[in-house]
Amino acid sequence: GVLGSGDFARSLAVRLACSGFKVVVGSRNPKRKASLFPAAAEVTCQAEAVKKADVIFVAIFREHYSTLCDLADVLVGKILVDVSNNTEINHHKESNAEYLASLFPACTVVKAFNVVSAWTLQSGARDGNKQVLICSNNQEAKRIVAEIAQVMGFTPVDMGCMSSACEIENIPLRLLPAWKIPIFLALGLFLCFFTYNLIRQVVHPYIREQKNKLYKIPIEVVNTTLPCVSYVMLSLVYLPGVLAACSQLYYGTKYRRFPDWLDQWLQHRKQIGLLSFFCAALHAVYSLCLPMRRSHRYLLIETAVKQAVEKKMTIWVEEEVWRMEIYISVGIIALGLLSLLAITSLPSIANSLNWREFSFIQ
Amino acid sequence: GVLGSGDFARSLAVRLACSGFKVVVGSRNPKRKASLFPAAAEVTCQAEAVKKADVIFVAIFREHYSTLCDLADVLVGKILVDVSNNTEINHHKESNAEYLASLFPACTVVKAFNVVSAWTLQSGARDGNKQVLICSNNQEAKRIVAEIAQVMGFTPVDMGCMSSACEIENIPLRLLPAWKIPIFLALGLFLCFFTYNLIRQVVHPYIREQKNKLYKIPIEVVNTTLPCVSYVMLSLVYLPGVLAACSQLYYGTKYRRFPDWLDQWLQHRKQIGLLSFFCAALHAVYSLCLPMRRSHRYLLIETAVKQAVEKKMTIWVEEEVWRMEIYISVGIIALGLLSLLAITSLPSIANSLNWREFSFIQ
Amino acid sequence: GVLGSGDFARSLAVRLACSGFKVVVGSRNPKRKASLFPAAAEVTCQAEAVKKADVIFVAIFREHYSTLCDLADVLVGKILVDVSNNTEINHHKESNAEYLASLFPACTVVKAFNVVSAWTLQSGARDGNKQVLICSNNQEAKRIVAEIAQVMGFTPVDMGCMSSACEIENIPLRLLPAWKIPIFLALGLFLCFFTYNLIRQVVHPYIREQKNKLYKIPIEVVNTTLPCVSYVMLSLVYLPGVLAACSQLYYGTKYRRFPDWLDQWLQHRKQIGLLSFFCAALHAVYSLCLPMRRSHRYLLIETAVKQAVEKKMTIWVEEEVWRMEIYISVGIIALGLLSLLAITSLPSIANSLNWREFSFIQ
Repeated sequence: GVLGSGDFARSLAVRLACSGFKVVVGSRNPKRKASLFPAAAEVTCQAEAVKKADVIFVAIFREHYSTLCDLADVLVGKILVDVSNNTEINHHKESNAEYLASLFPACTVVKAFNVVSAWTLQSGARDGNKQVLICSNNQEAKRIVAEIAQVMGFTPVDMGCMSSACEIENIPLRLLPAWKIPIFLALGLFLCFFTYNLIRQVVHPYIREQKNKLYKIPIEVVNTTLPCVSYVMLSLVYLPGVLAACSQLYYGTKYRRFPDWLDQWLQHRKQIGLLSFFCAALHAVYSLCLPMRRSHRYLLIETAVKQAVEKKMTIWVEEEVWRMEIYISVGIIALGLLSLLAITSLPSIANSLNWREFSFIQ
Repeated sequence: GVLGSGDFARSLAVRLACSGFKVVVGSRNPKRKASLFPAAAEVTCQAEAVKKADVIFVAIFREHYSTLCDLADVLVGKILVDVSNNTEINHHKESNAEYLASLFPACTVVKAFNVVSAWTLQSGARDGNKQVLICSNNQEAKRIVAEIAQVMGFTPVDMGCMSSACEIENIPLRLLPAWKIPIFLALGLFLCFFTYNLIRQVVHPYIREQKNKLYKIPIEVVNTTLPCVSYVMLSLVYLPGVLAACSQLYYGTKYRRFPDWLDQWLQHRKQIGLLSFFCAALHAVYSLCLPMRRSHRYLLIETAVKQAVEKKMTIWVEEEVWRMEIYISVGIIALGLLSLLAITSLPSIANSLNWREFSFIQ
Repeated sequence: GVLGSGDFARSLAVRLACSGFKVVVGSRNPKRKASLFPAAAEVTCQAEAVKKADVIFVAIFREHYSTLCDLADVLVGKILVDVSNNTEINHHKESNAEYLASLFPACTVVKAFNVVSAWTLQSGARDGNKQVLICSNNQEAKRIVAEIAQVMGFTPVDMGCMSSACEIENIPLRLLPAWKIPIFLALGLFLCFFTYNLIRQVVHPYIREQKNKLYKIPIEVVNTTLPCVSYVMLSLVYLPGVLAACSQLYYGTKYRRFPDWLDQWLQHRKQIGLLSFFCAALHAVYSLCLPMRRSHRYLLIETAVKQAVEKKMTIWVEEEVWRMEIYISVGIIALGLLSLLAITSLPSIANSLNWREFSFIQ
């Protein structure tokens, strides 16, 4: 059974009917709405629909939950599936599912399907996340809803008892929250270092020697900026651990909570580290592209021509050769090690490591 | 208990015995077959084996299921595990497990272990997929078989009720079905663009100026072909979404099914996108290899010598320098963004994103 | 309830209190220890704590389990959670959890939380592995502990019945055991080939022609060594499969166990293959860096100057051009194929392939 006639209710009815379930839709205005639903779904009034169904998807807004109170008698003993989402994180004091459960104590309420979009529901779980997070205080009801999700082509994930409902309702509202601060940090650092390098490599030679080096902006200036950003970000990954250790030594206990800023910082280390790796990888690619450039080719030929005209047969500078060889080989090793760190941050790899292995690699 | 004496039955008996289970094998010809099984497994006639065991693995072909009907009396109340596979996708109308369940209504049938090869069973789950997909209408039987799989070193995955059996039986017959069309598409596109570039870069200069440019085939021609393939594939990823939106606007409803070809296309977007990324990454590596080539070195020296002999001190062309700098830097940024897309298509990353984050990145 | 006052007990109490549970700590010396625990946790004597709690975490050493025997009466019917670890792999004959269960037959023992470090417990599951492996012979007790883990922010993983306890207790003691032999193998091979290449490219020209080629050590010698290591490792991935097939042909049976060394070898194939890929990837990066070096630039200019002075206009050697073009293009294709192999070894990708697809790719 599906209560409601909005977008989500229709997608749900389509999908349930496609998966072979017998669907009955309860609408306040069954005649007007019937045309919106697939032919396989029977559309009746709400009381009728509730009577015919054992599992009822409540696809209406939280604000209208109280309108269902008239159905309280026929709802007794039924499984109510709360699929609702909020518009803000922690909008209400209690989760929608807990609110529904408090309105209908004689029903078994299950929170599920809210992490799935109407589009995914309708078109089938094609790519992206196929998980449906389910929680309820009733094991049997949870199992039944999990099997429905399975048949519909989703992967049910048991999230425990009803107290998880609030967390589950917040999930669809997230938009990479852990990445916001690290990304702004990286952009800020990039801007600072870019300005500095621009002045040093382009503006300064122009003012002092009237040399036009503007062509260096897209690649060379960016390429000297990236490793600076990467280094600072990498140090910001390991710094909070040191600060935390100092704070523990200072207060003489491991069981005092860290100040909030340090706690936030500790939680963003993974993202800061991955951005540091991203900058380092970009730096590697930029550096490898240097000899491909026209400017590199022209400078090389010009030097050769100058040498040939002056009949200088050798220009070998041992020190410069060594500096470059060592610089490159250390860079490659550093990138190789950072890659290992980045790979272990993949969820499926991290889950196969115990904490001793994880800290060894870190 | 194991019924059958084929390859799978023997591997199963070996593995069960190694995992510490007491194994009894039921064979139609126990004396002749006993030597095939490990010493730890007791080999008797079928009726005897069924009596001694609570969980019975039916390792015989679907065609011979009916021969077990003589054992119907002793089988009452036992758990039958159907491990069979088909030779074709959707070969029979009902799955083997459902057929077995219909023959023995007094037994509890569980579908399991069919996704595991005899070799993996025998040698232990070393690498690759360690999952054993299990489905049954009986929770308790499913739990018992899941624990057996766990002890044998596999990861049991609950696939819900018996209606999933058909899907589970089709899994081992798949051979990357979603990749076939995209790969042929990529090969076709590659061939077309390769021919065009071959004519333009090798055949044409030869006919017009008698210049031998054959050395360009392995790297330069391939390298100009790859980004063309990559671009066309990338546009094919986003095109069906636009077509689907148009179709929805045209028909004025979101709930009409798309035509089959569009549906198929929408389902292959991920694979087409990954192949596009693969071509782009190969193009990057090929481009980076250009300055390593002998031919690059020779052309450079020849130009320098020519310039020196003619005493031309400068060959700097500002426009060409800028074109190359911008081309390379835009290329690197595009590759970086495509890499992010490719990483989010890893199953373990996709499962940690909600659909809002997923569509944001896409 | 938490029994014990060590580091783990304190972290557990902190975390449980933070997650909203009512915590009671049982200590032998409640007055002296009370200050160590957070204010939210009530610290009393052991008997008192056990009486008040339904789920009791036994955070004391295995050696002291017998001291709990005085509490046997009050423990009847309670759920005991064994969180202990050993100091050596397979230290005792039976696992700690099984030992605890044998001491208190009237209790339900659940093994859990031992794979989590005290630090992770205290600070919350931030990164790395968030899984808590749980096993017990009692389904209901396992479910209750799983929900506690869920509320605490961990991902409970059902590991079946008590016989898995021994395996679970061994997990935190592992330190990448499967990687040890392959890494030493790779290091050994690297050392051998490095010495050979050092003699050939640096020592030999110095002795014969007094040429100083020391600058080649950090990049060129390493770069000729890496592909050798990679090739030998790759052959070591496929060799044991051939040996296993030969052994099966020789003995005429697939059901004979392989000798131990071959079995070990077969189990390390994945790690050897990944190290082979790592060497190949490093070789690619090193090769791409060659034209970036000062030495490359100097040699190029010197050749050009020499040619210009001698007025040699052409130095094109068709054979050398072709050799390099083919060498590079075959190298790129090989790296591309190895990358596909490496990607399919990611756990989340491997789990989405059936064994037919997996062996096709291999």
